[in-house]
Amino acid sequence: MEQIPPEKTYRLLESGPVVLVVTRDHRGRANVMTMGFHMVVHHAPARIAGIIGPWDASYQALEETEQCVVAVPTIDIAEVVVDIGNCSGDTVDKLERFGLATASASVVKPPLLLDCVANLECRVADRSLVASHSLWVFDVIALWYDRGREEKRTLHHRGDGTFGVFGETIDLKDRMVLWKSFQVDL
Amino acid sequence: MEQIPPEKTYRLLESGPVVLVVTRDHRGRANVMTMGFHMVVHHAPARIAGIIGPWDASYQALEETEQCVVAVPTIDIAEVVVDIGNCSGDTVDKLERFGLATASASVVKPPLLLDCVANLECRVADRSLVASHSLWVFDVIALWYDRGREEKRTLHHRGDGTFGVFGETIDLKDRMVLWKSFQVDL
Repeated sequence: MEQIPPEKTYRLLESGPVVLVVTRDHRGRANVMTMGFHMVVHHAPARIAGIIGPWDASYQALEETEQCVVAVPTIDIAEVVVDIGNCSGDTVDKLERFGLATASASVVKPPLLLDCVANLECRVADRSLVASHSLWVFDVIALWYDRGREEKRTLHHRGDGTFGVFGETIDLKDRMVLWKSFQVDL
Repeated sequence: MEQIPPEKTYRLLESGPVVLVVTRDHRGRANVMTMGFHMVVHHAPARIAGIIGPWDASYQALEETEQCVVAVPTIDIAEVVVDIGNCSGDTVDKLERFGLATASASVVKPPLLLDCVANLECRVADRSLVASHSLWVFDVIALWYDRGREEKRTLHHRGDGTFGVFGETIDLKDRMVLWKSFQVDL
């Protein structure tokens, strides 16, 4: 896992993979949840948004600390990703139950997940839509990428418990004339 | 194209396809743009969010009318989707240039795009993050789906002009115990 510029966030999230959100509450207890509702808000500086509501155990830790790690899992841990979303941090130490390997982040307090291809260290940028829509805007202040790993295919939740996995790629870089500056490698 | 409950929106958007946004300004002129930054905000009532900024010609029409149609294109029109994002409605009548077939929506003024697999009629629900983050929250008030069409594979922009297309599907419905009620067919 190496650090790459956080401004490359859109290269990881724009295609819509399901992600894991890691928090650490004021007592130091880490938790993880599965999140399907998120988007890129801004290329650079890197900003994203996601839906985390009071029904999520992670909500309280986010409220307190305004920090999280957004990790991007791949298909080799698909079952774990689903199982994480089907139990609550209120009653289970999910990092322990699922045997998730962690490492310290560079800036934020929640840990990185070493089983994921990427980890985004996030700080809350705007919470004005939290009360009404559970919508959090985050600045991505550091980005970790596991360049060396074999499996990089992400999971795309169709909302019903099935996940699309990319096969074919359509390359239309040459037609994307106005957006050449965003054609960077990861 | 038939109407289905707007509460099925998440089944179409959660996986992260690139979409087209259709607007119609106060003079009656329709325009279309490509949008990669969007997410589901709420299952039911159906609510989504997307990033549309003053740099987009569609922004002005959205400001005036607070209505749009979000259409979901498939891989058969991939080149058109990219080309729509690489010219401006300020100088081009894009619906005409790209020969897009349209039909009247049921509630909103912008037209549906008949070449897309789905069309979401949207009304602005919250614009409080528009000034700061160009982030619009929309209620989806009607949803059209082309059940009969052969090609249903969507385009997932990796941010660099390449698009992932789903091949394999991973079915984990049985593990998704807390979310059974969302396992509805389209």
